[in-house]
Amino acid sequence: MATLPFENLGVACLDHHRELRQGTPETILGASKTVAQLLAIVRAMERQTSNVLITRLDQDKAEALLANFPHACYDEQARTLTLLHSPVEMVGRGTILVVCAGTSDLPVAREATVTARMLGHQVEELVDVGVAGIHRLFDRLDLLRRAAVLIVVAGMEGALPSVIGGLVAAPVIAVPTSIGYGASFGGIAALLGMLNSCASGVTVVNIDNGFGAACAAARINRRNPQ
Amino acid sequence: MATLPFENLGVACLDHHRELRQGTPETILGASKTVAQLLAIVRAMERQTSNVLITRLDQDKAEALLANFPHACYDEQARTLTLLHSPVEMVGRGTILVVCAGTSDLPVAREATVTARMLGHQVEELVDVGVAGIHRLFDRLDLLRRAAVLIVVAGMEGALPSVIGGLVAAPVIAVPTSIGYGASFGGIAALLGMLNSCASGVTVVNIDNGFGAACAAARINRRNPQ
Amino acid sequence: MATLPFENLGVACLDHHRELRQGTPETILGASKTVAQLLAIVRAMERQTSNVLITRLDQDKAEALLANFPHACYDEQARTLTLLHSPVEMVGRGTILVVCAGTSDLPVAREATVTARMLGHQVEELVDVGVAGIHRLFDRLDLLRRAAVLIVVAGMEGALPSVIGGLVAAPVIAVPTSIGYGASFGGIAALLGMLNSCASGVTVVNIDNGFGAACAAARINRRNPQ
Amino acid sequence: MATLPFENLGVACLDHHRELRQGTPETILGASKTVAQLLAIVRAMERQTSNVLITRLDQDKAEALLANFPHACYDEQARTLTLLHSPVEMVGRGTILVVCAGTSDLPVAREATVTARMLGHQVEELVDVGVAGIHRLFDRLDLLRRAAVLIVVAGMEGALPSVIGGLVAAPVIAVPTSIGYGASFGGIAALLGMLNSCASGVTVVNIDNGFGAACAAARINRRNPQ
Amino acid sequence: MATLPFENLGVACLDHHRELRQGTPETILGASKTVAQLLAIVRAMERQTSNVLITRLDQDKAEALLANFPHACYDEQARTLTLLHSPVEMVGRGTILVVCAGTSDLPVAREATVTARMLGHQVEELVDVGVAGIHRLFDRLDLLRRAAVLIVVAGMEGALPSVIGGLVAAPVIAVPTSIGYGASFGGIAALLGMLNSCASGVTVVNIDNGFGAACAAARINRRNPQ
Amino acid sequence: MATLPFENLGVACLDHHRELRQGTPETILGASKTVAQLLAIVRAMERQTSNVLITRLDQDKAEALLANFPHACYDEQARTLTLLHSPVEMVGRGTILVVCAGTSDLPVAREATVTARMLGHQVEELVDVGVAGIHRLFDRLDLLRRAAVLIVVAGMEGALPSVIGGLVAAPVIAVPTSIGYGASFGGIAALLGMLNSCASGVTVVNIDNGFGAACAAARINRRNPQ
Amino acid sequence: MATLPFENLGVACLDHHRELRQGTPETILGASKTVAQLLAIVRAMERQTSNVLITRLDQDKAEALLANFPHACYDEQARTLTLLHSPVEMVGRGTILVVCAGTSDLPVAREATVTARMLGHQVEELVDVGVAGIHRLFDRLDLLRRAAVLIVVAGMEGALPSVIGGLVAAPVIAVPTSIGYGASFGGIAALLGMLNSCASGVTVVNIDNGFGAACAAARINRRNPQ
Amino acid sequence: MATLPFENLGVACLDHHRELRQGTPETILGASKTVAQLLAIVRAMERQTSNVLITRLDQDKAEALLANFPHACYDEQARTLTLLHSPVEMVGRGTILVVCAGTSDLPVAREATVTARMLGHQVEELVDVGVAGIHRLFDRLDLLRRAAVLIVVAGMEGALPSVIGGLVAAPVIAVPTSIGYGASFGGIAALLGMLNSCASGVTVVNIDNGFGAACAAARINRRNPQ
Repeated sequence: MATLPFENLGVACLDHHRELRQGTPETILGASKTVAQLLAIVRAMERQTSNVLITRLDQDKAEALLANFPHACYDEQARTLTLLHSPVEMVGRGTILVVCAGTSDLPVAREATVTARMLGHQVEELVDVGVAGIHRLFDRLDLLRRAAVLIVVAGMEGALPSVIGGLVAAPVIAVPTSIGYGASFGGIAALLGMLNSCASGVTVVNIDNGFGAACAAARINRRNPQ
Repeated sequence: MATLPFENLGVACLDHHRELRQGTPETILGASKTVAQLLAIVRAMERQTSNVLITRLDQDKAEALLANFPHACYDEQARTLTLLHSPVEMVGRGTILVVCAGTSDLPVAREATVTARMLGHQVEELVDVGVAGIHRLFDRLDLLRRAAVLIVVAGMEGALPSVIGGLVAAPVIAVPTSIGYGASFGGIAALLGMLNSCASGVTVVNIDNGFGAACAAARINRRNPQ
Repeated sequence: MATLPFENLGVACLDHHRELRQGTPETILGASKTVAQLLAIVRAMERQTSNVLITRLDQDKAEALLANFPHACYDEQARTLTLLHSPVEMVGRGTILVVCAGTSDLPVAREATVTARMLGHQVEELVDVGVAGIHRLFDRLDLLRRAAVLIVVAGMEGALPSVIGGLVAAPVIAVPTSIGYGASFGGIAALLGMLNSCASGVTVVNIDNGFGAACAAARINRRNPQ
Repeated sequence: MATLPFENLGVACLDHHRELRQGTPETILGASKTVAQLLAIVRAMERQTSNVLITRLDQDKAEALLANFPHACYDEQARTLTLLHSPVEMVGRGTILVVCAGTSDLPVAREATVTARMLGHQVEELVDVGVAGIHRLFDRLDLLRRAAVLIVVAGMEGALPSVIGGLVAAPVIAVPTSIGYGASFGGIAALLGMLNSCASGVTVVNIDNGFGAACAAARINRRNPQ
Repeated sequence: MATLPFENLGVACLDHHRELRQGTPETILGASKTVAQLLAIVRAMERQTSNVLITRLDQDKAEALLANFPHACYDEQARTLTLLHSPVEMVGRGTILVVCAGTSDLPVAREATVTARMLGHQVEELVDVGVAGIHRLFDRLDLLRRAAVLIVVAGMEGALPSVIGGLVAAPVIAVPTSIGYGASFGGIAALLGMLNSCASGVTVVNIDNGFGAACAAARINRRNPQ
Repeated sequence: MATLPFENLGVACLDHHRELRQGTPETILGASKTVAQLLAIVRAMERQTSNVLITRLDQDKAEALLANFPHACYDEQARTLTLLHSPVEMVGRGTILVVCAGTSDLPVAREATVTARMLGHQVEELVDVGVAGIHRLFDRLDLLRRAAVLIVVAGMEGALPSVIGGLVAAPVIAVPTSIGYGASFGGIAALLGMLNSCASGVTVVNIDNGFGAACAAARINRRNPQ
Repeated sequence: MATLPFENLGVACLDHHRELRQGTPETILGASKTVAQLLAIVRAMERQTSNVLITRLDQDKAEALLANFPHACYDEQARTLTLLHSPVEMVGRGTILVVCAGTSDLPVAREATVTARMLGHQVEELVDVGVAGIHRLFDRLDLLRRAAVLIVVAGMEGALPSVIGGLVAAPVIAVPTSIGYGASFGGIAALLGMLNSCASGVTVVNIDNGFGAACAAARINRRNPQ
Repeated sequence: MATLPFENLGVACLDHHRELRQGTPETILGASKTVAQLLAIVRAMERQTSNVLITRLDQDKAEALLANFPHACYDEQARTLTLLHSPVEMVGRGTILVVCAGTSDLPVAREATVTARMLGHQVEELVDVGVAGIHRLFDRLDLLRRAAVLIVVAGMEGALPSVIGGLVAAPVIAVPTSIGYGASFGGIAALLGMLNSCASGVTVVNIDNGFGAACAAARINRRNPQ
């Protein structure tokens, strides 16, 4: 039984991401890969002097990678590892604002922040502004209205994007999180809430998908789209 | 095969509702009953000089009943028929406020209003104050804070009870409605949103259950509970 | 029992939509409203010389409205009624491309087209390019890559946004449709497919929500966002 | 990449809870917070001499907190940690009765008890009175009918609130628990049972949400609601 | 394209039911068959002088059959048509008691009654004894405890079999009905409630399956099982 | 905060089970109880010289109990612990046959066997007779047809009860198991298959509920039912 | 607003199907198309002298088409319309056997039969051989074992493909149908049963997808696959 | 309580698989079996000089088996253990191609590969050709079109089989994987996508069921089917 040419596989994988996002980092989903696989991939990238972003990376795997790439930077909250070979080129038109309903949603929000910065965008964060204490949101209306794109992260009932979508005219990307228990069903309640938002023009990504929200925001906010 | 003694059945049914709510109207779920059954039940109630409330009653059935009970009153929006033999005795401590997110939610809100009034409570209504235009809600803060109990009716993402639950200290009963399409799944999105409300102490009833919300509000607002 | 001030209600509803979209049409969800309600709302709008867009409007209701507003225009496929008091002001940066997997998805695609045009954007359409005959999609790569924003409408397995998301760098808004049978579950299969797209940065709206996709595209494509 | 000002975040969080519940404890959901975060939050609260209630706190985290706050009190069953700086002010009109179907539901019932007491209410408990041995429930009818508000906790088929709702006229708050296996689906069976209760006026909170039920009961039972 | 030999098909179908239930009626599910198909089947049965039971038969189809078989008997509530060629042979050990929570559940209960009688069993009925008015159930304890087998029919939360299962030692077959709305999900709530019954030894059949419950009761109650 | 009188609680629990099943063992669900709780309960039972059956008991807890009650007997496969103070009185009319589709379903089948024996019934077992190798089932037709009651345990698609229900006239109790992966959804596939059995008169219990199936079989098979 | 070039659309649609199935009929899903659209498409096909197969075509639409194409043939049971311009070329290696559990499943089975014949394959049918009367299946073992490919159609619990998959070595394609009620959930029960078949190597298509099953069988049974 | 004759059970189990697949390996699902059970089964097989394939075998159990059967071969990726007593007889007509969307889907793809080879078929693999980088798929069109049967493995949105089904005329077996997070729901999104494939004639197996896909491919690809 012939073995699969792993090196080959990895290169294909890398190549696949490059084509569309020239100048942007190689991104790797760390969750389903072994340390050995990750080391092989990062080494291949290093030879090509790409910037690297690994998402959904456990602390354990991160430490193994940091031992080999001491210049890499691991963000515990975002669970991302970043490795820069050249400064990130800024390509955005305006600021991407990442808004976060509760402190428990921070890991997803932070994944969005790290990703958007690695993709060359200016990011600001606004945290702990859930709809049950809505006055705090209104205190920051100026910040909300200044943003070019908003990523709104919320678990439980996921109502925040509806409220914000009614307050701003800029694009709003809603990210449901799996925060909650019981009838939150691992983020389904928030996901359905966001899909049914009464604020027209709110779009949604997968549960806990801070990375995807940042990619979508980057598509919107690029100075020269193609 | 012996027939079921219908008269008997109806009386049993009536009897069942009386015991706990002395002085309150007999209530009948109209949806699954024929005109013949409804006529028999209302006639039996009339002999006992009870006030009568029929919910979920179609226009067609209502007209057949109105032809027999010309003093009855049919509310097209609420789909309720009421028949008074004596004035409703007022038993409430404060005002029950029925809040309604969108105009499409009005039938459910109105069912709650009619029911609560038949149960002897003062009711006010506040309509079309969805979270996507939240300033209109803030214009009515005094009204919200004056209520003894709030029934908050919303479809789609069902976010309104969370916002209101964060603005008032009184009991908030959330009623999800089946208004919406696609991933609203006939009210599941709103139901889940309300069950996962980040405003603590919000309770929920079944989808479209304006009647049940009013019963719950009446339990809370009675001057002499037992 | 006091009646609800309907006139008041309608105005509140209108007012709510204006604030954020100055110069844009008033939009009304026709599905859950009676002809009488729609006539009242459109008349109120007429006094304010707004442009009007009614979505999800049945043929029957449309005919009743056309009898009263002979200058209105009803699109049978999109099930939209539009009424212009002044020419639509063009506010977009580029072209919005509405792509449609199958002919059965056309009503949703067309709702997106009509909405985006009413919101002041240039729209092109590309239809019947499902993934099972993918060569036809490749024949139109130039069209896909020229668009500023893409709205991709698909039912059944909803795979088209993934393929297109991998071919273009512009924002892609995926719209699942309820087209299908059996395990399509009224659009759930397509919705889940789009939420799990392997093309990063694809965002999703509710099932059959062509209107919402157009609003999202309009948020992205506005020359002066706020 | 700037770090988030945690201290700031915590204060915002604390502030958010105060406004509506003057004189009531600060409450913290322990489940998704690290020991370090919890220590920081409790210390900030201590400076403000607030009473503190932490819910869903694992034994491990509890021990770390107890080492720092030896006067705190951890309830293993309820998984709550309480820390009193001043005696709890009693603010209730009557007694809140927490009823519990089975011994496995005790943790949720006890969370309700601890919370309601911290919110200033008199609480009694009635345990192990499931509907399959219904005579035991009838032996305690006096206790049931004396309560001002009832919190009824049940897993499996969740039938207890229906039975009790038919026996008392006071408000009944139903709490489904995740106790069960197979087709209990982590509490969905009980949740649906309670939402469909044939006893009118029963309201429901999220699965295992003893805390929320107590907050709702406290809203109902406050002497001076606002 | 050859046509399918329908006569053949029907005979096969009839044959299939005979083998195990010698002396019992031929039973036909009327729901998915045309009047022409039903006529052909009943005529074939008539030649074999079998007793016939058709379930789930609409009024319209029933009238067409009655025109051809004037001795047949249609039960509007049960939606069954029965046609006797010889008296039903009584084969049971004791009485089967059909208990019914609400009047809306009567059609399902009655289908069980008609079926069990056609299978040769003594049946009694007890109706409108839902758990919200539980005293009426206790008034009939003697009746409950006298039954050899109990079929308990309930919609909404489906709690009745749990209560009855705790009161009697005889076999209890629970039948969930699709009565309810919103989160009853067409009988899922009742089905799950019954599957999770805390009264051990309660078994369950499909939603609205009065026929199946009667077949199960007949299996249990036969004097000479094989 | 007063502690709950555990002893009291336990006694109530024990008492509850006795009433209906005089002479039968006390049964305890081991899953959600601590070793300390189990020891207390078993000791209380011992004072009353009851036979004891504990189900869903992990190996770890079992060992702790065996250390205290060396005469107890733990069945690793069934995960049951039994403790006899007097011989089990045989109360059945015929033999209960436990049929098992695959070897992976054996723990559930064995739980049924142990329970039925403790309840005083003769039990036989027939294992590994899944529908994909149906000839082995036919080899044992005599065994199947001799049984007074059949408990049929199957995971995956759960088809076995349909086949057996068509082969025998005795009562068939179907037990879905959680064996399977992917779209078996923890036993939902088997559960739905059994509820929709085309063999009329098959009844169903909860997923993995061997205990409940045995209780149901015991209700059916008792010589003197009440 | 420019109209969509329908003629163009139709041609694209036709073209799309040709490429892979040279010599095979054009197939059209009739369900979501108007009579006008269908007429236009069939006329376009006629100019190309293709054979035509329309599936899921209502009686009403069929009659309108038959009025225009009197040589077409409508199968009421299969709800297919076929129009031959040249005899179907036979391309199969062996016989495709369509097996059908119940008479209610016949429309789906027949759609498979018609489709497979239009695709150039020999088809036999075996009907009414459900697993509850399994002896009838065994009477036809020779027929089952002679088939090159088997399409097995079943609703309710969908057990038939498992039994047949264990009896033959040829490819088995399982088609769940929406026949059933209650917990059959429109075919989900049968679908899950088939996906979890204990007979290895059974594959599954969408609910009620007789057309798809025939296409799959045709892919397998072609003499010269490419 | 008599013990079950395990040896007997094992033999029955082995025997069951043989009958239909003379000359093929014995296959064992390793997941739910203990090392002791597996050792007993493999030893029994050894005495019959069968080839052996164990699937879903954890590393731990594999090591225990390898210690006893040093000639066995464990594939870590596929999680299969194979033990050859005689060379595998090649029985296929053409090549089975296993296509894999992402590197995370490799374990399932590899299980299919190992199984198909053990069943006597030639297998090729094509990996990492997801639809988001579709050009790589087109580079390998010749490979795709040369295959006699294709097994297409994909997680997330599961779109790959639709694209491939439109490119080839050979049979396509789609295997959804549980790869993904959030709204992938453990493979449901991919499963639904594949069931709703717009490429006609694609069939589907259970989530992660590489083994079953290979069995289905083997049924199709056998030179002498019976």
